[in-house]
Amino acid sequence: MIINCVAYQEGARLVDLPVDDISDYLDKPGCFVWVALRDPTPLELDAMRREFDLHPLAVEDASHGHQRPKVEEYGDSLFVVMQLIEWVGGDMNLGEVVVFAGPNYVLSVRRGSKQHFLGVRERCESEPEVLKQGAGYVLYALMDAVVDRYFPVLEVLQSELESIEEGIFVRGASRQNIERLYALKRKLLQLDHAVSSLLQFSGKLYGRRVPAVCANNQPYFRDISDHLSRIDAQVDSSLDTIGTAILVNLSMVTIEQGEVTKRLAAWAAIFAVATAFAGIWGMNFEFMPELKLRWGYPAALGVIASASSFLWWRFRRSGWL
Amino acid sequence: MIINCVAYQEGARLVDLPVDDISDYLDKPGCFVWVALRDPTPLELDAMRREFDLHPLAVEDASHGHQRPKVEEYGDSLFVVMQLIEWVGGDMNLGEVVVFAGPNYVLSVRRGSKQHFLGVRERCESEPEVLKQGAGYVLYALMDAVVDRYFPVLEVLQSELESIEEGIFVRGASRQNIERLYALKRKLLQLDHAVSSLLQFSGKLYGRRVPAVCANNQPYFRDISDHLSRIDAQVDSSLDTIGTAILVNLSMVTIEQGEVTKRLAAWAAIFAVATAFAGIWGMNFEFMPELKLRWGYPAALGVIASASSFLWWRFRRSGWL
Amino acid sequence: MIINCVAYQEGARLVDLPVDDISDYLDKPGCFVWVALRDPTPLELDAMRREFDLHPLAVEDASHGHQRPKVEEYGDSLFVVMQLIEWVGGDMNLGEVVVFAGPNYVLSVRRGSKQHFLGVRERCESEPEVLKQGAGYVLYALMDAVVDRYFPVLEVLQSELESIEEGIFVRGASRQNIERLYALKRKLLQLDHAVSSLLQFSGKLYGRRVPAVCANNQPYFRDISDHLSRIDAQVDSSLDTIGTAILVNLSMVTIEQGEVTKRLAAWAAIFAVATAFAGIWGMNFEFMPELKLRWGYPAALGVIASASSFLWWRFRRSGWL
Amino acid sequence: MIINCVAYQEGARLVDLPVDDISDYLDKPGCFVWVALRDPTPLELDAMRREFDLHPLAVEDASHGHQRPKVEEYGDSLFVVMQLIEWVGGDMNLGEVVVFAGPNYVLSVRRGSKQHFLGVRERCESEPEVLKQGAGYVLYALMDAVVDRYFPVLEVLQSELESIEEGIFVRGASRQNIERLYALKRKLLQLDHAVSSLLQFSGKLYGRRVPAVCANNQPYFRDISDHLSRIDAQVDSSLDTIGTAILVNLSMVTIEQGEVTKRLAAWAAIFAVATAFAGIWGMNFEFMPELKLRWGYPAALGVIASASSFLWWRFRRSGWL
Amino acid sequence: MIINCVAYQEGARLVDLPVDDISDYLDKPGCFVWVALRDPTPLELDAMRREFDLHPLAVEDASHGHQRPKVEEYGDSLFVVMQLIEWVGGDMNLGEVVVFAGPNYVLSVRRGSKQHFLGVRERCESEPEVLKQGAGYVLYALMDAVVDRYFPVLEVLQSELESIEEGIFVRGASRQNIERLYALKRKLLQLDHAVSSLLQFSGKLYGRRVPAVCANNQPYFRDISDHLSRIDAQVDSSLDTIGTAILVNLSMVTIEQGEVTKRLAAWAAIFAVATAFAGIWGMNFEFMPELKLRWGYPAALGVIASASSFLWWRFRRSGWL
Repeated sequence: MIINCVAYQEGARLVDLPVDDISDYLDKPGCFVWVALRDPTPLELDAMRREFDLHPLAVEDASHGHQRPKVEEYGDSLFVVMQLIEWVGGDMNLGEVVVFAGPNYVLSVRRGSKQHFLGVRERCESEPEVLKQGAGYVLYALMDAVVDRYFPVLEVLQSELESIEEGIFVRGASRQNIERLYALKRKLLQLDHAVSSLLQFSGKLYGRRVPAVCANNQPYFRDISDHLSRIDAQVDSSLDTIGTAILVNLSMVTIEQGEVTKRLAAWAAIFAVATAFAGIWGMNFEFMPELKLRWGYPAALGVIASASSFLWWRFRRSGWL
Repeated sequence: MIINCVAYQEGARLVDLPVDDISDYLDKPGCFVWVALRDPTPLELDAMRREFDLHPLAVEDASHGHQRPKVEEYGDSLFVVMQLIEWVGGDMNLGEVVVFAGPNYVLSVRRGSKQHFLGVRERCESEPEVLKQGAGYVLYALMDAVVDRYFPVLEVLQSELESIEEGIFVRGASRQNIERLYALKRKLLQLDHAVSSLLQFSGKLYGRRVPAVCANNQPYFRDISDHLSRIDAQVDSSLDTIGTAILVNLSMVTIEQGEVTKRLAAWAAIFAVATAFAGIWGMNFEFMPELKLRWGYPAALGVIASASSFLWWRFRRSGWL
Repeated sequence: MIINCVAYQEGARLVDLPVDDISDYLDKPGCFVWVALRDPTPLELDAMRREFDLHPLAVEDASHGHQRPKVEEYGDSLFVVMQLIEWVGGDMNLGEVVVFAGPNYVLSVRRGSKQHFLGVRERCESEPEVLKQGAGYVLYALMDAVVDRYFPVLEVLQSELESIEEGIFVRGASRQNIERLYALKRKLLQLDHAVSSLLQFSGKLYGRRVPAVCANNQPYFRDISDHLSRIDAQVDSSLDTIGTAILVNLSMVTIEQGEVTKRLAAWAAIFAVATAFAGIWGMNFEFMPELKLRWGYPAALGVIASASSFLWWRFRRSGWL
Repeated sequence: MIINCVAYQEGARLVDLPVDDISDYLDKPGCFVWVALRDPTPLELDAMRREFDLHPLAVEDASHGHQRPKVEEYGDSLFVVMQLIEWVGGDMNLGEVVVFAGPNYVLSVRRGSKQHFLGVRERCESEPEVLKQGAGYVLYALMDAVVDRYFPVLEVLQSELESIEEGIFVRGASRQNIERLYALKRKLLQLDHAVSSLLQFSGKLYGRRVPAVCANNQPYFRDISDHLSRIDAQVDSSLDTIGTAILVNLSMVTIEQGEVTKRLAAWAAIFAVATAFAGIWGMNFEFMPELKLRWGYPAALGVIASASSFLWWRFRRSGWL
Repeated sequence: MIINCVAYQEGARLVDLPVDDISDYLDKPGCFVWVALRDPTPLELDAMRREFDLHPLAVEDASHGHQRPKVEEYGDSLFVVMQLIEWVGGDMNLGEVVVFAGPNYVLSVRRGSKQHFLGVRERCESEPEVLKQGAGYVLYALMDAVVDRYFPVLEVLQSELESIEEGIFVRGASRQNIERLYALKRKLLQLDHAVSSLLQFSGKLYGRRVPAVCANNQPYFRDISDHLSRIDAQVDSSLDTIGTAILVNLSMVTIEQGEVTKRLAAWAAIFAVATAFAGIWGMNFEFMPELKLRWGYPAALGVIASASSFLWWRFRRSGWL
């Protein structure tokens, strides 16, 4: 579906174009075309390929979806693949946006996500003096919008981690903790996948030799790279923390199990003592003088109670009960 | 066994050659020869060596099999070793294909695999304008076909992992889970071996200084490298997940064992109490007034039942039963 | 809040400036301006941006806070972000200081920390011959002050680790040990985050190609980098030690649990033997001659005591009791 | 001990030399000298140092033994240290061979190993046209012989690993498995040590700037490097598998222990029930009407048997027995 | 404390100098000064700084101690920090030696260690032809002496590891093993710290661009680097082995615990059977015909003994007893 197809001249909106006229505007000096597609049909993509003269391999990648985030150069144009991450009812939904950026055009193709970039276009149009910088700035604005949307995702995951950490030394919560840690790790790996691959490629967009499209906006692209580094470092640190937390949880499980074993065994010992004494006085020997005594029974009960209490007190003192 | 031996001119099939005529066609301008062998005999390989003037070290590697995936330059020709992975009745079968590509020839040698490349030849012949690009394009088409066949293998392994993950928090499945995780890890390592070594070498086929054979097809070889990166990243992530899953499984085993211990010990305690009471009233003291009482026995049973029930209720409340 | 705003000439304090006059002094030869802000308002930052002609992206980073430590070049000026770490009542507090350093100015902005840099200014002013070196030296002095304050933080964490290590083989301390290790790891990761990112960037400030601001002070910036390396190596080594300590702690828990299980089971066995003997002599067979014997009962008690003692002695010898 | 000392000219064996004449032949055009020593005395090494003008540091390394595998350049000559690995009665024996290779000489010194290189010399002498290439080819042939002997060692270790893996899910084998895994890991680390260090250095022998001795044989040295990579990758993968296997083994131990605990506790519960019932009917209350019944005893036995059977059936159904 | 302060000319000892005359000898052609300090006072260090014109940052590092091993260039002079490791009563003692080496001087400063370098000076003086090479050779000789002293330390640690490994599968030694492994790891980390940092820096002293002081002695410095690599590789391998050993130890603990649990539970089962039978015959039913039989009691004892023996035999067969 074509969302927008607009030509700009000197930073100002010139005209809304029908698709077939795009190629006419590409040659006009100081002019560039900015097209936005969403879940395009093969036909629409093919029309774009013809109008912008896109490389077939890039178009193929754009039509398949499920690409790895990347930045590729085809001659003097750039092909950027980014992942869109959004929360849909507690689950992470992965979409994709690919951007083709040439000297005088930007084509963005969005798939499988409800996030749109109308705000980016509005903000760009409201600042003609920066929009004058052309396709490079638009590419930056789109990338910046995508990357900025990773931060709230990261925050949700980090606060989930903190909430798990608060419960990690709570007794009896280990089963739930480990399930949450495992689920969290999977989500972090998805974010990591979106970020680290893009981070690696974003290093090409500033520094010594950069594609012509980005040449005038290097500090901006370095800024994107810096944001990605920040997310990446925090994701790595969270993953490392999860690893430790799983190990610590295992220790806690073992410690708790040991405590329960001790307590149960202590009670078992107390009853075993009582049973042993009772068994002895239950023997059928003829000459057991204490059995004839008037106070034999209460005394026996007393002995049993004393022995049990003594054990209880010993175990209590050693912290087993 | 020689499957095919064809000379092409300007992208069109010229003639099916006998092996001994190959060298005659190598010097014709605009001409290239494409030979496909399968499980060749030493004699066949030696004939190829003579006709194409192949380097003895490369021919030795091709005749031994079980090579590491790699790309090597010998003068102006390339020697590519790739692994073929296919499912044979639930098990992974590893085959091998080696490709010799020179300025005007391509020789592919397949070993130990049922996958053939007739489709590649057909597709190339149906597009004469790309086949005109010569040996470099054919090399790309062969590599692309091999790499594309890794994707379904990866998908099978990933869905196996997902199926294990669904069962990882199910009680009593830990033995089976760990066996499946271990078997899956072995298969992933095999895929990893096929992919990561080839990925490393494929970086030589595009970028700054490339072999002459690939010079005109750099975006295509970059595309292969990109596909390999994608598989590699997913394999790495799956391996990482397996590592965590094994650790989580160990935690689950320990947790479950703790639960069972608690339950059994709780029942043991209930019976121990009953036994202790019965033991006491089984003692043979002469003066145990309750033994004479009319309702002594039912009362005793009541006491035993109450004590047991109380314990049962306590354990229930603490979640041990 | 503006803390200080002073112009220097030839290493000597020239005059305290109002903010609006800053730009006048920037053009005077041999002159540089050194401004210190603390938790600035957006207005104050904007005034600075205008006076020093700072890059908008850098100002944005400075106004947001919570940046990753980094060093960035904008034209001929440097933008440095560092984290301040201080102890507030046993907890680590993270602040931030960003420094803008150009050929003839230094602007430091401090956030969320009680540490101030008045001592740095005093020391610099007391040594006019080094202050003459200008903005580069002031940048060094500020960075050096920040980095030097990491050392006491590291020492506290290392002595905490040593104190945990002393208790790691003490019986019964494993729960506490693991909580302390986990808390310590989190603090070390924060220090690591502050240090390792800055270390990575500090490599840009000396060596082959350095920013003009640092050109005359390379050994000084190498010294900072060396200090950071030292902290980083020790943090890494401590993190590694914590990982081992967690694993060792898990082993100790398992060993201790095993010892307790052995001891309890040994006592259970001793009582079980007593109960079994008592049970046998409690049977109601008519013809049990030993029951009629005068010394049957004491002998039975003797047998029970001997069997129990023998077991006790055996268990003692095997180290179970 | 001097094994061989021969001068070659144009690829053909010229003459067997006494040691003192070596230097005379070094200056003859098209001539090179190939000497093989075994466990040499200091005197023999010193003679070699004088004749070939070897660097004292290299000679020192050669005389000490127990060096790390390496390749070092001294002026226009190469000094190569390799480890020899052989099986002596089920144990790995480590020997060492060092090779000095100059423009017109090769000196190999073997220590502490029974493997000899006579086959290498024979094969070289039987192919005069390759031997004509001189010292570089001889160096290659020696290195190739050493590296080729690593493959059978690797195969033995890999089949040991496979044999352990087959037993890893077998009940009751965990103690033996872990001992074998540990022993295997030690042997793999020795092989890894021999291979990975040499692999790292072998990269110097082909590619952009290579020592003069190797200049004409680059594909050959690349082939050695490729073989080393192959071994190295397989060793790494085996080590990784061992790590996982140890963890899996630990899980299996814990699972098996849990199964045994369950089974024992189940039997304990069955007997505890029997004991509790028996205890109740063993109480001495006067009014226990069932005790007077004719069929009381068989009924009681029936009750006890039923309760025990019911428990047995419950436990069986839950898979505990 | 000044240990030695000597001027050399053409490799021969010229004169023992008072400190204040040092600078006079620095300008004489073919002359160099070699000074050795031990635990110097600030005054002594300051005198050196003046005489040799040392960089203040280097002098600061030398006066603080506890530096990371490193090699730094200050103009045409080198500043080398190394750690000295020695055994003092079973514990590792860490000292430090820093060396300042310029074109015509060497100054070594030793701290907190009893190891001296008089042997180095003696050996150098006894070989005038190498001492003629000047400051670079002396620097090499000092570094070589320090590095050579790491080898016996490594050997002690490795033999401790081997001694632990011998005991790792011995029953009942796991607590002691884990304490020894942990202590050993700490010592190895200290050695690693001394070696790996120095190794990293030593790469600067040979190869493409080297400091002028080392220019003529490159093979010597490469030799030091090689020795460091050897130690480093062995330390890394030992650390890796310790990690595995800790995990294996944990497995052994779990296995042993399982064996003990099995044995104890087996005995418990045997006694529980005896108790259950005794309980049944201890019931007070009136009509229990076997109680009246003459041979009832011996028969009952026989039944109990048989049941217990049967269990004992079953458990024995399953390897539980």
